[in-house]
Amino acid sequence: MFHVKQIKKDMIEEQIKKDIRNVPNFPLPGIQFKDITSVLSHPEYLKWIQQETVKHYADYGITKVVGLESRGFMMGPAIAIDLNAGFAPIRKPGKLPWNTVSVTYNKEYGEDRIEIHKDSLSKEDVVLLHDDLLATGGTMEAAIKLVKQLGVTKIYTSFIIELDELKGRELLKDIEVFSLIHF
Amino acid sequence: MFHVKQIKKDMIEEQIKKDIRNVPNFPLPGIQFKDITSVLSHPEYLKWIQQETVKHYADYGITKVVGLESRGFMMGPAIAIDLNAGFAPIRKPGKLPWNTVSVTYNKEYGEDRIEIHKDSLSKEDVVLLHDDLLATGGTMEAAIKLVKQLGVTKIYTSFIIELDELKGRELLKDIEVFSLIHF
Repeated sequence: MFHVKQIKKDMIEEQIKKDIRNVPNFPLPGIQFKDITSVLSHPEYLKWIQQETVKHYADYGITKVVGLESRGFMMGPAIAIDLNAGFAPIRKPGKLPWNTVSVTYNKEYGEDRIEIHKDSLSKEDVVLLHDDLLATGGTMEAAIKLVKQLGVTKIYTSFIIELDELKGRELLKDIEVFSLIHF
Repeated sequence: MFHVKQIKKDMIEEQIKKDIRNVPNFPLPGIQFKDITSVLSHPEYLKWIQQETVKHYADYGITKVVGLESRGFMMGPAIAIDLNAGFAPIRKPGKLPWNTVSVTYNKEYGEDRIEIHKDSLSKEDVVLLHDDLLATGGTMEAAIKLVKQLGVTKIYTSFIIELDELKGRELLKDIEVFSLIHF
């Protein structure tokens, strides 16, 4: 039974991997953009992304899924619902209307800043940070710093896609990384 | 039984209505911003928003849920999963990496433009357009025009919140509007 399920899992994984659209030179020259919209348009893939992530983190006692603007908003709440957790967004500057804390960090093309509502997490929360893609890990590293500012100590991460050769996983050090599709 | 369920529905609706944070003068002076982040942080509210929307549209044969950037991304895919539909995003200019169609429309504070991938919908699709809030309806009216450009004829809309006195519903004319919470 496990064997049959495993084959099915591998098949859908392979199929999704083929269906992720590669867009050269977007948003900047030299970047091979992985477009997940070609995957999210399939109901069975949406479910698979939700269910495989939930399966992995089912016993971690996750209380909040935190999605990173804006592609992390797409699957974050669906994952939260099935983990029986709440959802909180991390956003770009000026988008959140209430009191925030923020982190500034360096990207390939200059500085960036992300924010979270101060009252969206407490130190008792077990947090799953979610984004669509793990590349160099810079944004997720900043997100980890951000939730730590709110006293959170139990932090995990989930991604739909991981670009293995960019070694973002190493940047995140002692934080658990779970990704569904590897390139 | 129906009666008991109805009371429960009304109670959670009232509770959510109280828990939506009102932020005066955001993002501009004079606007009373309805902040849904204070609601999405509760697992039972997340589920309620998903399930009540799915219940309403269960028999409509929806094949694609289309979410409007970026708060429409939060519940759109969760609703799609339980309707057994796919998800497609409508985004601000330059964010979608592939071939798009676009619509330009007027907002209170100048012009705006939204885009969708050309291949994200076909004329056979039954589309549920989803956003967090129906105010004047200008953005949703533009979204309807946008999906019509792709040949879609069966179009429905869903919102978490509707600001009744702004009469956005009237602007959307013959398109069905379903909103969970009314102010």
